[in-house]
Amino acid sequence: MNSAILLLSCRDQKGIVARISDFIYRHKGNIEHADQHIDGKTLFMRIQWALDNFIIQDHKIAAALKPLEREFKMEAGLHFTKDSPRTAIFVSHHTHCLYDLLLRYQEGQFKCTIPLIVSNHPDAGKIARYFGIKFVHTGDEVRALRELKKEDIEVIVLARYMRILSPAFVKRYKNSIINIHHSFLPAFAGGNPYEQAYARGVKLIGATSHYVTAKLDDGPIIEQNTVRISHRDSLDDLKCKGKDLEKLVLSRALRWHLERKILVYSNKTVIFD
Amino acid sequence: MNSAILLLSCRDQKGIVARISDFIYRHKGNIEHADQHIDGKTLFMRIQWALDNFIIQDHKIAAALKPLEREFKMEAGLHFTKDSPRTAIFVSHHTHCLYDLLLRYQEGQFKCTIPLIVSNHPDAGKIARYFGIKFVHTGDEVRALRELKKEDIEVIVLARYMRILSPAFVKRYKNSIINIHHSFLPAFAGGNPYEQAYARGVKLIGATSHYVTAKLDDGPIIEQNTVRISHRDSLDDLKCKGKDLEKLVLSRALRWHLERKILVYSNKTVIFD
Amino acid sequence: MNSAILLLSCRDQKGIVARISDFIYRHKGNIEHADQHIDGKTLFMRIQWALDNFIIQDHKIAAALKPLEREFKMEAGLHFTKDSPRTAIFVSHHTHCLYDLLLRYQEGQFKCTIPLIVSNHPDAGKIARYFGIKFVHTGDEVRALRELKKEDIEVIVLARYMRILSPAFVKRYKNSIINIHHSFLPAFAGGNPYEQAYARGVKLIGATSHYVTAKLDDGPIIEQNTVRISHRDSLDDLKCKGKDLEKLVLSRALRWHLERKILVYSNKTVIFD
Amino acid sequence: MNSAILLLSCRDQKGIVARISDFIYRHKGNIEHADQHIDGKTLFMRIQWALDNFIIQDHKIAAALKPLEREFKMEAGLHFTKDSPRTAIFVSHHTHCLYDLLLRYQEGQFKCTIPLIVSNHPDAGKIARYFGIKFVHTGDEVRALRELKKEDIEVIVLARYMRILSPAFVKRYKNSIINIHHSFLPAFAGGNPYEQAYARGVKLIGATSHYVTAKLDDGPIIEQNTVRISHRDSLDDLKCKGKDLEKLVLSRALRWHLERKILVYSNKTVIFD
Repeated sequence: MNSAILLLSCRDQKGIVARISDFIYRHKGNIEHADQHIDGKTLFMRIQWALDNFIIQDHKIAAALKPLEREFKMEAGLHFTKDSPRTAIFVSHHTHCLYDLLLRYQEGQFKCTIPLIVSNHPDAGKIARYFGIKFVHTGDEVRALRELKKEDIEVIVLARYMRILSPAFVKRYKNSIINIHHSFLPAFAGGNPYEQAYARGVKLIGATSHYVTAKLDDGPIIEQNTVRISHRDSLDDLKCKGKDLEKLVLSRALRWHLERKILVYSNKTVIFD
Repeated sequence: MNSAILLLSCRDQKGIVARISDFIYRHKGNIEHADQHIDGKTLFMRIQWALDNFIIQDHKIAAALKPLEREFKMEAGLHFTKDSPRTAIFVSHHTHCLYDLLLRYQEGQFKCTIPLIVSNHPDAGKIARYFGIKFVHTGDEVRALRELKKEDIEVIVLARYMRILSPAFVKRYKNSIINIHHSFLPAFAGGNPYEQAYARGVKLIGATSHYVTAKLDDGPIIEQNTVRISHRDSLDDLKCKGKDLEKLVLSRALRWHLERKILVYSNKTVIFD
Repeated sequence: MNSAILLLSCRDQKGIVARISDFIYRHKGNIEHADQHIDGKTLFMRIQWALDNFIIQDHKIAAALKPLEREFKMEAGLHFTKDSPRTAIFVSHHTHCLYDLLLRYQEGQFKCTIPLIVSNHPDAGKIARYFGIKFVHTGDEVRALRELKKEDIEVIVLARYMRILSPAFVKRYKNSIINIHHSFLPAFAGGNPYEQAYARGVKLIGATSHYVTAKLDDGPIIEQNTVRISHRDSLDDLKCKGKDLEKLVLSRALRWHLERKILVYSNKTVIFD
Repeated sequence: MNSAILLLSCRDQKGIVARISDFIYRHKGNIEHADQHIDGKTLFMRIQWALDNFIIQDHKIAAALKPLEREFKMEAGLHFTKDSPRTAIFVSHHTHCLYDLLLRYQEGQFKCTIPLIVSNHPDAGKIARYFGIKFVHTGDEVRALRELKKEDIEVIVLARYMRILSPAFVKRYKNSIINIHHSFLPAFAGGNPYEQAYARGVKLIGATSHYVTAKLDDGPIIEQNTVRISHRDSLDDLKCKGKDLEKLVLSRALRWHLERKILVYSNKTVIFD
């Protein structure tokens, strides 16, 4: 069973919901979810409808929507629930997020296909083999890009990948690279966030998943969470507690991204959850 | 600035969103929020639109919606954001929730008018005076009902009211009486929930706000929360930590109720938050 | 570096701390952690000291403590941080907790040795192989007991094991079998807790780890946690969110058990965290 | 029933616990709570014992402890549970924390006496009258200091007090002024933290209570908490949700301070909870 998902933003005007829902109704679609958000003068919308009896063929829907898009000056993206975006995972020597993502993938939690794992460390090779996924051991961005292209990758997850990607790379995958930073951003951006948190004596530690932009640890935040610590927790305890946060926060971000629940605007995100 | 809120449920059918949004658009309303939920074959919807230039007068909107209601066999309720439902608070000797509600009311957190406090204890009288609200000291339901009628009360909050209301009373205010129970229901229903929790040795305690139904502590749950406790916490510590939960959980339930964000069905709630 | 851990309970009397700390001091031990709890008339204590220069040999400490134990009528258990209790994991067809435990084990989060996985389903066999652990596929308790004996197992973790153990089995491993129940006990004990929670319309779901006793889902609670759900969550969403809770709650319970941080009394636990 | 509380820190050495508990035992005290923490080479300890049959008079205990303090080069503070430190609350125009503190005070949650409220705004005057507490309306530090002296104030709570205290003032009340900052420090230090959080698009907001030091928002953190927000929350919603956090976090910090559960070292806190 396939459904269409329309994600759009535009200046708020009367009649948008009416016109879009009428478009769906006239072509015999049944709305399954609809959510909207207005921030100042901008409207954000996510609408999903069943395509069972829809009278426009899948590959012609986008064109059929064009007149509406032009009329309301929308920025719109059309997706299908049957889609399974090809996704690559980048990892360095900490493999807890990698394992977590692959186990969730194996359980069917992610609407995607994961054909590729890239790492600047050899350790993840064994894991890739266990899950039957191609492993590329390289720290070279050009090599990585070639593999991404070869595998037709749309989405990249940085699962504790400790290298900084070049601006060109980031631009190429705009709003498609999801990173996990092991702090409650904007606190403790940059290197060694657990060490920074330990030194400051905070009573909670956090983790943040965000889209990667040219500026380090500054992209649109997708999800965050915190967990209580105390003076009894050593730096190692912080790292251990933090790992559990990282896994939850990163996997949730990827799930929302794949379910087309995220709209990015002015370095923030709307999450249609 | 006044807006209309339509809360509805009906069998899910194609075209409902289109027809309702078209109704709003044709009469020059601008949709501010729209949310829907489908549970099995039932559609639940909350839609709010600005009435600035709406061409139907407020008191004629309900009638104008009747044809749509009949066509789709909707159960629908129409409300206005300018409404300020008259609300009474019932309390016994624990006054922390009463204080909390009145302070939030004073800060403008609740879209209601609170003209009446009823208590079977005299202690709350001083509080009522400080906030300039009429206080009725009675444990007699007939007397209470008379006062509720006199004050034209629509919503009743049981802010740690320790008496059980009669079935007739409950029926009279169906889905309009909000209670706070000091446990994570369905665990520890009935009397002395903190004592029960302490005896069982749980590691979290909870609080639950729900609509009152004929069966004790069994009505549709609106909101719940929990807080961590440990062996170090005495029974008094549990009660103290629990109070903070009760305040949060009860005030949130009242806010949602007043903002017409709650739909009740099959002893559950949909919260359009 | 080895340390001794003394866990004790007795009637509260003057001088216990003084006498025990003096015992440690006189024999040249250095106290690393000390925590105590008084519940009514009963004292619970956990004290850990470094054995670097301790003048009593490890295997003679228990005997050396006997006079103190007799004098204060203590129930006491002596442990060593260098110990690595042999631990078995029982699992049925849900393998998320099994994976989680083994990955944490691989990371060094547990002070134990895991030589054995027992399952009434064949699926976990592949996992056992990957982690290099012996796998026994049986639903027969007698067979399981034989394997436990052969492997000299001290601790058993029921990682979503869906069979009920016999009273004799439970008695044999008193306070040494840790179960995860996928609800916030005492709510939704017994079968299908997620289905029960969904039907009741709760706003949080929970998970509970506890020692197994003869009475189902009624043993001393070690750890609990809850997570928010909404009407938007289907039964499958509940199960998915619940899995994350189960992993956290079960792994924490096992860690505390292995670090000798738990004392059981009157069907409750003291956690010296 | 009075108990003594000894809070100490010193270089970790063998025999400290033994010597202190022996001191208590020999003079017929009964230890009620004992907790310790070792950070690197430093020992922190809190020990509380009943004085019912203690053979040293209260006012002579400090002197009797001197030899031990000298021997182990301790920094030690002796307190009594019967103490009720005189506490002043400073507030500006946001009164939610003030109300919260006074209601908890009225319920007996704080082991202190509150004889004074200072504000640079007149609004809190009515509240002070209701609770029967002296109110001083001034923004002048010299005037405030005079009142603090007159009322023999030991502890100061800044309950959303929006003025910056002078270094001299802060020095005079070292580790005795507790502030609430309405963000998760170190994120969003300085002015308008909710505005900063809103602009950054974080998914949780926080509150932090800390001791005031010469450097703004940089003192030892006592307690922190966070709450989830979403794109649906306006700036006003953030402020509203934040208020609940602020109340919880500030009141908890004050309670711990008054129960002598906090030790400050190297700009961090140990909380013996």
